[in-house]
Amino acid sequence: MRDDFEVSRVPRPEPGAGEVLVRNLYLLIPPSMRLWMNEKPTYFPAQPLGEVMMGITLGVVEDSRDARFAPGDYVNGLGGCQEWFVAEAGQLQKVQPRPGVPVATYRSVLDVQGLTAYCGLTEIGRPQAGETLVVTAAAGSVGSLVCQIGKRLGLKVVGIAGGPEKCDWLRQVCGVEHVIDYKSEDVGARLDALCPDGIDIAYENVGGPVMDLILARLRFKARVVLCGLVSSYNGGVTQSTEALMQLVNKAARMEGFLVSEYLHKQAEVVERLEHWIAEGQLHYQMEILDGLDSLIEAVGRVFHGRNRGVQLVRVFEEKAA
Amino acid sequence: MRDDFEVSRVPRPEPGAGEVLVRNLYLLIPPSMRLWMNEKPTYFPAQPLGEVMMGITLGVVEDSRDARFAPGDYVNGLGGCQEWFVAEAGQLQKVQPRPGVPVATYRSVLDVQGLTAYCGLTEIGRPQAGETLVVTAAAGSVGSLVCQIGKRLGLKVVGIAGGPEKCDWLRQVCGVEHVIDYKSEDVGARLDALCPDGIDIAYENVGGPVMDLILARLRFKARVVLCGLVSSYNGGVTQSTEALMQLVNKAARMEGFLVSEYLHKQAEVVERLEHWIAEGQLHYQMEILDGLDSLIEAVGRVFHGRNRGVQLVRVFEEKAA
Repeated sequence: MRDDFEVSRVPRPEPGAGEVLVRNLYLLIPPSMRLWMNEKPTYFPAQPLGEVMMGITLGVVEDSRDARFAPGDYVNGLGGCQEWFVAEAGQLQKVQPRPGVPVATYRSVLDVQGLTAYCGLTEIGRPQAGETLVVTAAAGSVGSLVCQIGKRLGLKVVGIAGGPEKCDWLRQVCGVEHVIDYKSEDVGARLDALCPDGIDIAYENVGGPVMDLILARLRFKARVVLCGLVSSYNGGVTQSTEALMQLVNKAARMEGFLVSEYLHKQAEVVERLEHWIAEGQLHYQMEILDGLDSLIEAVGRVFHGRNRGVQLVRVFEEKAA
Repeated sequence: MRDDFEVSRVPRPEPGAGEVLVRNLYLLIPPSMRLWMNEKPTYFPAQPLGEVMMGITLGVVEDSRDARFAPGDYVNGLGGCQEWFVAEAGQLQKVQPRPGVPVATYRSVLDVQGLTAYCGLTEIGRPQAGETLVVTAAAGSVGSLVCQIGKRLGLKVVGIAGGPEKCDWLRQVCGVEHVIDYKSEDVGARLDALCPDGIDIAYENVGGPVMDLILARLRFKARVVLCGLVSSYNGGVTQSTEALMQLVNKAARMEGFLVSEYLHKQAEVVERLEHWIAEGQLHYQMEILDGLDSLIEAVGRVFHGRNRGVQLVRVFEEKAA
C-alpha cells in the first residue's frame, strides 16, 4: 500500500478573497477511508488518481480573507491528507473547544463518530427502553459510543468485539456488561444465551458471518441500523440470503444512513455528548499517530482492527511551530 | 418429494358447538409453502411431521353450529391439505363473491396476493408518482399485481421475469412496457439502460444475483420492499455484502413485512382491486390443478417457476357433488 502513495512538496497556497488558509492539526482515519480509494463512489466521489488524498481534518486558521474566520480559530473541514490547505470559508465549520476537552475530540467523538452513533441509534434504531441492542465492532470509535448511549437510553446492550483487550475495555471502562469476543467465542451460542427473546436493534458496522448470526435472531419488527459493512470493503464477502429472509419473517427493517443527513442535529448532539464526557459518563479512546508519514500505518491499523478507538493522525502540533 | 407425503383416509369430522364443517374447494399454493416444511418456523410455525400438511383454503360451509355461518357460505381459512375440516367459527372469514368474479380469486388475487402486492408497495415502498419501481418475479402472482398497481400509482415500472412467455404476458396483457428477461438478457446492462437515474423502489420476491444487481443501482433514500426471497428457500444462495453496502451509501431501506400485519386494510384493498378487475384494468393469471393428488405437482411447479400466475389446487368442484 505504501507504493500506492506519493509524497509531494509544493509551495504553501495563498488564500484569495473569501478564502481561508488552514494548517491541519488532525486527520481523521475512518474505516471507510479505504473505500474512497475504490473506483466506485461512496458517500464521497471516488478519490481521483494523482490528486491529494481526501481527508477529514481539524485545523487552525493561519490567514483569513473572510470575516467569519480569524487566525487561531479551530475549524473542521475536508482538508485532505496534507499539511496546509486553502478553502472557501463556506466549506469550513468553526469549532469552539470547551476548556478541558481535548481539541482532537471535536474531529472524532464529538463529530462524525458521535453524530453517527447517536443519530443512527436514535433515528434509525428508534429504541424503546427495555429493548435488546446488539452492537458489532463494539469497541470501535462508533460502536463504543453506541453501546454507552444505548445503556443511557435504557437498553440491554450486547457488544461484539475481537480479542480480550477490547472486550475488557468495553466491560471495565465503558460499563458494557454483556460482551462477546468473536475471536474466541461461539457467537451464535452466546447470542442465544444473552438474547433469549431475540434482538430488537442491531447496530451493524461489520457484516459477514456475524451479521448472519444476528439476522437469524431478530425479533418481530426489529431494526438493523446499517452504519457500515467493514468486512466487505476489500470485496468477496457474502451474506446468506436465507438469513436476510428473517427480515421478511419478522417484518424487520434494515436501513442505512449517512451522517451527512443529520448535520442539523450536530449542535444538539455535541452538547449532549460534551456534557456526558464532562461528567465522566462517556468513555472513548483515541489513538493518535504523529506526522503525515504515519498515514499508511494508520489506515492499515484501522483496516486490520489493530487500532484502539478513533484513529487520528496528528499533522502539526496544536501550538504554532 | 412425492415420497415425503402420505395420503390418509379418515372419517369425515363432525362439528361441535361453535364449530363449522367446511368442504375445501381451493387450496392456495404460495411459493413459501416449501418453507413451511423446514424445521425453522416462518410466519407459520414449522409443519409438524405426521400431521395434515398446512394449507390456505377457500371452502364452502356444509354444516354449522355457529350462528355466524350457514351451509352454502364461502369461507377462507387455514383448512389444510385435505378435503374436509372442522374449525372454530372464529377461525374462518366469510367471503361474498361478486357476480362475475371467479370464486377462486377470493383466495388469490383478491386475498393474500392482492393485499401483499398493494400493502407492500404502498406501506413499505411509499411510492411517489414519477419514481422508478423494479419488480422481480414480475409475472408471478404478487409481482404482476405490483407492476399494475405501480403503473396506476404513476410509477415507471420495470418488471423482471424469466422466459419469453412470461415477459410477453407482462407486456401485452398487463401493459408493462419495460420488461427484462433474466434468462436471456444481461440484467445489469438492461437496468442501466432502463433506469439511468437508478432505482427508487425495488419490490423483491427472489433474492440472489439479480437482487445484488438491483441493490447496486439504488438511488438515494431508495426502498427495497422485501416480500420474499424465493431463491433462498432451498438454502445455499448468497448476497454480496458489498452490494448491501449500497444501503449505507444511499441511505436506503430494506424492509420485510407480513401480510398478516395489514388484515385491517383487507376490505378496503379488496374493494379497490375488485373494482379494477371489474373495469378490466387489473389482469391476473390463475392456474388450477384438479384434485388433492396434484398438490405435489403444484408445489413443484411454483417452486421451479413453471406456473403461470397464482397456483391453486381445486379440491372439490364448487357445486355440491
